[in-house]
Amino acid sequence: MIFRQLIEPDSSTYTYLIGCERTGQVVLVDPVYDTVERDLALIQELGLKLAYTLDTHIHADHLTGATKAKGLVGSKIAAPKMDNLSCIDVGVEEGHAFQVGDVVFNPLFTPGHTDTHHAYVLEQGGLTHVFTGDCLLIDGCGRTDFQNGDVHRQFQSIRTKLFSLPDDALVRPAHDYKGRFISTIAQEKARNPRIGLDKSEEDFVEIMQSLNLPYPKRMDYAVPGNRLCGECPPELPEEMRRLCETHVQG
Amino acid sequence: MIFRQLIEPDSSTYTYLIGCERTGQVVLVDPVYDTVERDLALIQELGLKLAYTLDTHIHADHLTGATKAKGLVGSKIAAPKMDNLSCIDVGVEEGHAFQVGDVVFNPLFTPGHTDTHHAYVLEQGGLTHVFTGDCLLIDGCGRTDFQNGDVHRQFQSIRTKLFSLPDDALVRPAHDYKGRFISTIAQEKARNPRIGLDKSEEDFVEIMQSLNLPYPKRMDYAVPGNRLCGECPPELPEEMRRLCETHVQG
Repeated sequence: MIFRQLIEPDSSTYTYLIGCERTGQVVLVDPVYDTVERDLALIQELGLKLAYTLDTHIHADHLTGATKAKGLVGSKIAAPKMDNLSCIDVGVEEGHAFQVGDVVFNPLFTPGHTDTHHAYVLEQGGLTHVFTGDCLLIDGCGRTDFQNGDVHRQFQSIRTKLFSLPDDALVRPAHDYKGRFISTIAQEKARNPRIGLDKSEEDFVEIMQSLNLPYPKRMDYAVPGNRLCGECPPELPEEMRRLCETHVQG
Repeated sequence: MIFRQLIEPDSSTYTYLIGCERTGQVVLVDPVYDTVERDLALIQELGLKLAYTLDTHIHADHLTGATKAKGLVGSKIAAPKMDNLSCIDVGVEEGHAFQVGDVVFNPLFTPGHTDTHHAYVLEQGGLTHVFTGDCLLIDGCGRTDFQNGDVHRQFQSIRTKLFSLPDDALVRPAHDYKGRFISTIAQEKARNPRIGLDKSEEDFVEIMQSLNLPYPKRMDYAVPGNRLCGECPPELPEEMRRLCETHVQG
């Protein structure tokens, strides 16, 4: 396996480059529109070829780089099947492994941040990696107050599905806002201040409902744009379209 | 590879179990006297056999489990060659790989916390793991004010040797006092408050010299005891010997 953790600093997003050494194929998990060229340059430098982009969910904080990468290098677009997007090439779902070369992702349906969110589990060299998207973050978790989010489903996704993974599983989140890169399931069980094992579902609900988070500044174009796999929707109001196009070209 | 991160909570020590799937041999990195039976029970449960214990340095905060494990299951004792201990079976040194089955540790001489401290680098499945002992910790580093510690050598060990490893290398420290389990080289470069890349050697020296840390409560028996690979030294004063024996049986 070839592995790189890449950062898009504006939205504090982690994009993961996972390559198969035997076939030279690469999957980019949660690519960001703004950093696609950087990611593709790195893939080329490594002598590899982007085969797929794979999103964990319909992001509200950035435009996915899926369509842009497809346009530039012909990669295919994978995303949760239940998103029902006409722009995807492969719909992934729990119970069906998504394999690219020797790299195997096992999708886990983990609703709560959004109603179609998926995490991806990868076993490699005796270690489990879990790309947790915006479900489980380091010392935190994704918000549950929009996009059909549901605090109770989020609790179940984390406690029932993710916390059932091995304690040593490497937690690879889609974001961190404090410069942390990695965690483990054991660490999140032990000290996640929202949903560690010392917290009840009632505690979690109370914490999540008291967050008072601001409205995401890119949400009004990112959500419809990501339903197009990362294009600025033509039907956006002019001001919003300008924001979308300016941002993604910035 | 079979991998487990184990905790000894009294000294907040991480012991790492690394096993070779092909041969069933296990290496325990930095085993603690008090938790040897637990570690051996786990190894047995996994159907494996302890081949070696491997210490990163002469610990001042706990007694190594090396001799105890050897007595119980006949494992061999590996430790830095330059410690010149008569109780070790294999002396490891930088430039010479230490291989157990298919598991290969590359020792890195990383003085500063002690004058013979070594870290161990392991490449597996496309990922680099570095067992950093008490050299580099998560958001911190080992103290440099005893056991021939040297703040300037510590700076060089971290900045020149450890920070030369890949950004995605998994930092596996010997301790964490806040329940964190893992970091990466990129994370420590970015946000280690003592020795991140934004700090100069002068900053580091000033920070380390201002720590005002207490005298380690087990040091007076742990250091001579670890020079015997984890036995209470017979020549200890009676009170100290009682402490050593009480503690290690506790």
